[in-house]
Amino acid sequence: MIPKSHPRYESLLLRDKMVKAAKKGYLADSAMIAHGRGEAFDYLIGERTTYPAKRAMYVAVAALLLSNNPVISVNGNATALAVEEIIELANSVGAKIEINLFYRTDDRVKIITQIYKDLGYDKILGTLDDDIEYLTDIKNNRASASKTGIYSADTVLIPLEDGDRAEILKKSGKNIITIDLNPLSRTSKMSDVSIMDNIVRAIPFMTKIAEDLKTQDKQVLMEIVNDFDNEENLKESLEQIKLKE
Amino acid sequence: MIPKSHPRYESLLLRDKMVKAAKKGYLADSAMIAHGRGEAFDYLIGERTTYPAKRAMYVAVAALLLSNNPVISVNGNATALAVEEIIELANSVGAKIEINLFYRTDDRVKIITQIYKDLGYDKILGTLDDDIEYLTDIKNNRASASKTGIYSADTVLIPLEDGDRAEILKKSGKNIITIDLNPLSRTSKMSDVSIMDNIVRAIPFMTKIAEDLKTQDKQVLMEIVNDFDNEENLKESLEQIKLKE
Repeated sequence: MIPKSHPRYESLLLRDKMVKAAKKGYLADSAMIAHGRGEAFDYLIGERTTYPAKRAMYVAVAALLLSNNPVISVNGNATALAVEEIIELANSVGAKIEINLFYRTDDRVKIITQIYKDLGYDKILGTLDDDIEYLTDIKNNRASASKTGIYSADTVLIPLEDGDRAEILKKSGKNIITIDLNPLSRTSKMSDVSIMDNIVRAIPFMTKIAEDLKTQDKQVLMEIVNDFDNEENLKESLEQIKLKE
Repeated sequence: MIPKSHPRYESLLLRDKMVKAAKKGYLADSAMIAHGRGEAFDYLIGERTTYPAKRAMYVAVAALLLSNNPVISVNGNATALAVEEIIELANSVGAKIEINLFYRTDDRVKIITQIYKDLGYDKILGTLDDDIEYLTDIKNNRASASKTGIYSADTVLIPLEDGDRAEILKKSGKNIITIDLNPLSRTSKMSDVSIMDNIVRAIPFMTKIAEDLKTQDKQVLMEIVNDFDNEENLKESLEQIKLKE
């Protein structure tokens, strides 16, 4: 048990979730390393949701609400850290959830499928019995996608996604939204909307934004999306990293 | 196999070493997370050995050479990443090597002991049959130390060390040298000499420095040590972190 008084309580709690997920067997071998990288960047932004991140979240939610077939892509890390929050966001914006693993194994897919089912979410895509298509001519796991999910999606939210896979998704012509604590990562640079934040803070915040934006006209949502410049916003995100004590 | 042409080849190689060590069972649960944090900071300094790091290494080696009983403290991560380099440095500066695990279990100690023995290094301290003393009144693993090693050491090199343990070592009056990629970490701030570098680059570099400094008079080594200001050097280290692309 981590005492609530510990100065690193929130961070240690997430670390604990990752350790438990690793023991359950549904994380990739290097998943913990990716989490550690995120921890470092989160530390450098003061473990708070910055203004550029909030701006990107408004744009992301507006884009999801405007889409015909929005999909949230989940992997082991996203599931370990924020499975309930992801389901809530999906329900709120009317998005599908699809399991997409860069290092896909049947075992990992099975365990993750069960985690969503145990929470009452039965519509999960990308499962072992789902119809899988490929986004490129090369039929590998980096390009696999559920036929009714990411394969036919117009907007895909990819929290904590590998750069190679982000690139394939982008090249397939989809609107890509990422949540990634590293504003210099390939995924952040390649995405249409890059939210530099910890997913445990970002996803519930996006659900709140959705409750607000759902009451707005389509025209308003389109303005939010069109006014946004991701490159500029990433620059502002980078400036949030404070190196002085 | 990672192709040598991969832009992240060196980083992926280290990641691979960590994954293998985890499978061998001698890493702490959150060891991979710590490695990921290091990766992020290494990325931010351009994965190169900076000038302030080199300066700190000269001071560290001089201090080790001047000490009566210098000890290099090793844990799972240090062993996974640089076991051979650590043995070379220890032989070069005449330091002992001691296994010191923040999350100490007999199994982990046994596996790590064997790794050093398999490389022909039989003098390793901190093993299961070593005499263990405590640096504080509270007899826990954070304060444990080999009687002929850290317990009686004047200078201790603690690469990749936890902040709690660094604090206990410091309070016990020893001269502390750390190798830590995060210049803001408690360990970096608490140490007498903080080398902000990746241990796989730092340790072989320190061995080279040792070959040079061993030919110098004691007076020269003392001047190197006395001229050094760790706080100032940490500030300069921090300035090496480049956030602009």
